[in-house]
Amino acid sequence: MDVVVGIDIGGTKTKIGLVNKQGQVLEQTYFRTRHYPILEEYLDQIDTTIDILIRQCVTPVELLGIGIGAPNASSKNGTIEHASNLVWKGIVPIVEILQQRRALPTKLMNDASVAALGELLFGNAQNMTDFIVVTLGTGFGSGIVANGKLIDGYDGFAGELGHLDITLGDGRLTGQGVSGGLEAYVSATGLKRTVMYMLAYHMDDSRFRSIAYTDLHGEEITQAADEGDLIAIKAFDYTAKILGTALANFVAFTQPQAFILMGGLADSQKWLVEPARKYMEASLLPFYKGKVQLLSSGLKKSEAAICGAASLIWQDYGVMEV
Amino acid sequence: MDVVVGIDIGGTKTKIGLVNKQGQVLEQTYFRTRHYPILEEYLDQIDTTIDILIRQCVTPVELLGIGIGAPNASSKNGTIEHASNLVWKGIVPIVEILQQRRALPTKLMNDASVAALGELLFGNAQNMTDFIVVTLGTGFGSGIVANGKLIDGYDGFAGELGHLDITLGDGRLTGQGVSGGLEAYVSATGLKRTVMYMLAYHMDDSRFRSIAYTDLHGEEITQAADEGDLIAIKAFDYTAKILGTALANFVAFTQPQAFILMGGLADSQKWLVEPARKYMEASLLPFYKGKVQLLSSGLKKSEAAICGAASLIWQDYGVMEV
Repeated sequence: MDVVVGIDIGGTKTKIGLVNKQGQVLEQTYFRTRHYPILEEYLDQIDTTIDILIRQCVTPVELLGIGIGAPNASSKNGTIEHASNLVWKGIVPIVEILQQRRALPTKLMNDASVAALGELLFGNAQNMTDFIVVTLGTGFGSGIVANGKLIDGYDGFAGELGHLDITLGDGRLTGQGVSGGLEAYVSATGLKRTVMYMLAYHMDDSRFRSIAYTDLHGEEITQAADEGDLIAIKAFDYTAKILGTALANFVAFTQPQAFILMGGLADSQKWLVEPARKYMEASLLPFYKGKVQLLSSGLKKSEAAICGAASLIWQDYGVMEV
Repeated sequence: MDVVVGIDIGGTKTKIGLVNKQGQVLEQTYFRTRHYPILEEYLDQIDTTIDILIRQCVTPVELLGIGIGAPNASSKNGTIEHASNLVWKGIVPIVEILQQRRALPTKLMNDASVAALGELLFGNAQNMTDFIVVTLGTGFGSGIVANGKLIDGYDGFAGELGHLDITLGDGRLTGQGVSGGLEAYVSATGLKRTVMYMLAYHMDDSRFRSIAYTDLHGEEITQAADEGDLIAIKAFDYTAKILGTALANFVAFTQPQAFILMGGLADSQKWLVEPARKYMEASLLPFYKGKVQLLSSGLKKSEAAICGAASLIWQDYGVMEV
């Protein structure tokens, strides 16, 4: 059976799986990225893992290629460049090295763009030509599809919407040192920062007055909002308003038919997604109103990243019919 | 000889011309849009004008189709919808009507998108796959090309970057009632508004203290800046900063190789374009720096709109080689 290797390189885990033409993950596993600070050893570990997965398969498989999702990836250069979450510094030519080792078609792309491809081929965007995936995790990632194709940009760095400056250069700093970057507001980290801001701004009683910033977790903020904690409720409202305004801005750019929101923060339908929808509609120009859907991912959480990475190869095999 | 009719529908003038495969405008003329408040009579005038242009041609011509650029145009519906600058109200199905009259392929698109197509086929973007045209006239228009194709959006309204909210919902109102819309700052009108703002904010002596808002014109502000008028200089700097920040934001979206700036305001290289370039570079993420060009249009000013409109038809004839 023909399969594609899907690899998701994250700061904590590297997930690897074998994906068939229907987008099903046949076998998968992971290892700790940080255990392999030497690039060569990391690549050895990837090789070994692929071989193990192949042997685990019940039916014999033929590898068609390797698709990789990673942060700070340049799809055109096949490199990971200056990724602050990863252990290897500088520019890592991962596609070139893996291709030398296995002589298989190998492709790399930004993790959020890969998520968008996964939705296009196997998820909730199978019949769409224009949509945007937004990943709300520790950061704010995005993958943009227009005219049925992922937008790559001049040298493969398009779709960094988390770094849009939403405050005319006068706002919170992001990890990249960008002032007013959207990600500094709308992400798990951004929500924590907003809880701090609300503690400073308001005098409401709150459980968060006795919890330090570093001990604060996203799920706890949701739970506090459910229990009526005013600081948590105000923090979510502030976040949802910025998200909704940002989504309305994105509509004026590529006019997507839908946003697919994923990542931990997007689980908060009641406190984040629904209010963001209202703020978005309120900000949309007349001819955009009522036309944009906010959707969840159509893929299993445990498989989405691997399946998306494999889509980089499967898209060349006519899986897509746009 | 094969030619395409290019029509540019503006609030003041309707320009019509015949364009050959090399993008040359063989014949052209215009009439006053406002003289024809009844749609049928306006379309009659278009018909008559086309016939006159054909008769003026030295060699016999064959019409391949009609391309139209207009404000508030939906390319997918072939309609002009609620254009505040035009005399006809509501939804105007102009493509359907013209096609019934002449049985020729007829296409319509947003005027700034059409300008982008013109640059792609015949202007300064002939070898580019990713660029953005920004028109800085009375308003702020934009046409986005990514992966070698114009971005249309879900129902043809993509690329309304002038309506991006750049102030988190807390800024100047645009003509569309959008709060904080980029166009309210970066356009000929925006610059005039900024002169008023600077007169309020600063106490510098200025020629503009004795000129009323309605008597103020863009060229005069450039002239005043040249002569050292501090209010004019501060107004340009304020505008250039917002333009530069906005362009940097656009880069994080589709990562264009170039912006092509056109329209009256873009003539101000010294006071607007050059400072905007500096502000843009300062705002760009590290992996975008030094890669984005700011260009002028590659088409003659008197022909650009007609040539762009005709590109809507010529693009189907393999003029483009991307």
